[in-house]
Amino acid sequence: MIDFTHTKQLFQLPGNVVYLDGNSLGPLPKSAPARIEAMLRDEWGEMVIRGWNRAGWMQQPSRIGNRIAPMIGAPEHSVVMGDTLSIKVYQALAAALELTDDRNVVLSDTGNFPTDLYMADGLLRSLDRGYVLKTVEPDAIVDAITEEVAVLMLTQVDYRTGRMHDIAALTEQAHSVGALVVWDLAHSAGALPIDLAGCNADFAVGCTYKYLNGGPGAPAFIYVRPDHANIVRPALSGWLGHEAPFAFDRDYRPGLGIERFRVGTPPVIQMAALEASLDIWESVDMADIRSRSVELSELFIAEVEARCPMLQLASPRDAARRGSQVSFKFDNGYAAMQAVIARGLIGDFRAPDIMRFGFTPLYIDSDDVLAAVEIIDDVMSSRAWDVPEFHQRMAVT
Amino acid sequence: MIDFTHTKQLFQLPGNVVYLDGNSLGPLPKSAPARIEAMLRDEWGEMVIRGWNRAGWMQQPSRIGNRIAPMIGAPEHSVVMGDTLSIKVYQALAAALELTDDRNVVLSDTGNFPTDLYMADGLLRSLDRGYVLKTVEPDAIVDAITEEVAVLMLTQVDYRTGRMHDIAALTEQAHSVGALVVWDLAHSAGALPIDLAGCNADFAVGCTYKYLNGGPGAPAFIYVRPDHANIVRPALSGWLGHEAPFAFDRDYRPGLGIERFRVGTPPVIQMAALEASLDIWESVDMADIRSRSVELSELFIAEVEARCPMLQLASPRDAARRGSQVSFKFDNGYAAMQAVIARGLIGDFRAPDIMRFGFTPLYIDSDDVLAAVEIIDDVMSSRAWDVPEFHQRMAVT
Repeated sequence: MIDFTHTKQLFQLPGNVVYLDGNSLGPLPKSAPARIEAMLRDEWGEMVIRGWNRAGWMQQPSRIGNRIAPMIGAPEHSVVMGDTLSIKVYQALAAALELTDDRNVVLSDTGNFPTDLYMADGLLRSLDRGYVLKTVEPDAIVDAITEEVAVLMLTQVDYRTGRMHDIAALTEQAHSVGALVVWDLAHSAGALPIDLAGCNADFAVGCTYKYLNGGPGAPAFIYVRPDHANIVRPALSGWLGHEAPFAFDRDYRPGLGIERFRVGTPPVIQMAALEASLDIWESVDMADIRSRSVELSELFIAEVEARCPMLQLASPRDAARRGSQVSFKFDNGYAAMQAVIARGLIGDFRAPDIMRFGFTPLYIDSDDVLAAVEIIDDVMSSRAWDVPEFHQRMAVT
Repeated sequence: MIDFTHTKQLFQLPGNVVYLDGNSLGPLPKSAPARIEAMLRDEWGEMVIRGWNRAGWMQQPSRIGNRIAPMIGAPEHSVVMGDTLSIKVYQALAAALELTDDRNVVLSDTGNFPTDLYMADGLLRSLDRGYVLKTVEPDAIVDAITEEVAVLMLTQVDYRTGRMHDIAALTEQAHSVGALVVWDLAHSAGALPIDLAGCNADFAVGCTYKYLNGGPGAPAFIYVRPDHANIVRPALSGWLGHEAPFAFDRDYRPGLGIERFRVGTPPVIQMAALEASLDIWESVDMADIRSRSVELSELFIAEVEARCPMLQLASPRDAARRGSQVSFKFDNGYAAMQAVIARGLIGDFRAPDIMRFGFTPLYIDSDDVLAAVEIIDDVMSSRAWDVPEFHQRMAVT
């Protein structure tokens, strides 16, 4: 079993607050500043251009992809880093469509993160070939997987409620009607065990700044099933996805396998931060993380429900159907979250009425959960949210 | 006039070498490590998620865009940062095509950087609407700008020879036949004065890790002429280009003007490095930079030509037609560049036979130029390149 007392010491946590928002942006690994400074001075500073070879920057997207792979049940050489999640969604969906050209429906659900739907919509419009982006309620997905569906594109864990789709079952069902699947693991990677290879998933994408603690703007990852990777011509065919980038050929020839999903110059400094975090991740077992996350979440639900009757559980009650966050509904959720934050508990509000709290066992323990419940109880019972200042919405929350 | 002795002190330069490769990757500003460490500890570490508001991370792509704008002759609110140059080329070309839908030729030249051509080719293939990517020799561009051309897409300064296109003249010519222009400023921004607004350019893109010293993987920029920005629906329509990202609407509504060309989460750590460099840039005048660059380049050409008859000038002899690099042709250029590097002069080789040297007055002076010539002369006159070890090509050069 992981020594969570030890792992908590590995992070710089913000002073005087309980941080239940690691599902939005993970905290700073204490080792990251020194690692980045060494990269800056010894690599960028001293090697400059030679860093691409000497410090291995050029291979970094694949090397880090190989470190992410075991966390999502992917084989070596099937994951590569780069760009943002939005860009990787676009590439994954475009590749899936290339492999399924006789059907016209891309199926998703209303629980998918908006940018996935925006990117899909933009791609389908530009292709202008009669594709339809069909979204149904999450519970209706099973019935909507029909033979019209080219690609099923879902986020495993709903960013609002934490409701979790069954990757294995839905992938199998999609395959049974001849559709391919694209899984967005934004709220899954680093939160729970994932077995992409065991589920035979076709494509997956995710970000590294949430549970994986890679820092603000950390790069995304893309997984492509090895038997697909070598037969698609990637959308966004940039030079670093070319078979021989430094031949400077005029024609694009896709690189081997997952390498072709690289696009431009990798964000070397961001990746140094991510590597500091991955050192921690490689010392822990995801099954332990998951069981502790369930313990903390169950404790939180039980305490909040016992003490705050105004809050209605928005997450599935069954832990097996829930990611690593717990959400409650409250009509004045925006103001209540402002009041909660003002008292030292950081969570998120998600429109229209969701108060969201993330459980990240690497650095959150049961004392934090109990302290969080104290604050929520205090805010709710004192109606602390019912003051004008907490109702003024900022542009960004 | 700039005190170049002072600006040279602001950079960490690699030990025991002359660095004539700032046109590929600029060196580390000495102020960057402390700035990044402060960002890590005080912003990511202490604010965590609150950094998006409190530290202004969310506005960073526009704020830095507004710092880049004056360097390229762009008005405020017409430049935004993000992604890589490849991605920004894709967005710019897609937007230009949206505004010119009755023509089918995208015109470029063989001196364009390969990734621009790859991205264009990938975009045109996916659109599948009969678009043709036509490339001609750089000198043939003027004659190829006809009424079939939808978009003229060029890199101003050729990455191999340093040959420079005339932005004003070619933009005017393109407009006169009803075409739009996309300029890639990769080898221009920070190298020479650019006046996008004065030239009435439609779109421009560029990177910040070359002359602008933003560090390996620093984000790209995109300029969109303000009267175009509000009427195109951007390709790669990610959530941070949405009018109201945090409303989490299901439908994409493009943001105001240049903001709609944002895609996903910005690389906050990379941008902290770039900001350190921009502090230096804001203290200097681009006309001074250009005149010093021409002086250094002319000195280099004169000395090399006087001493190394085996090397043939590949760059335009007329400084007004040349960017901030000087290239020589030599059949054994790869091996010769390895020998030059082994003796402490860092330049680049570009296939098939180009030896390339960049002149960056912020931190390169005439003593560096003379020291570089000594090394080149020594290598050439001693045939130091003519040993097997320098002929073995690495995957990345």
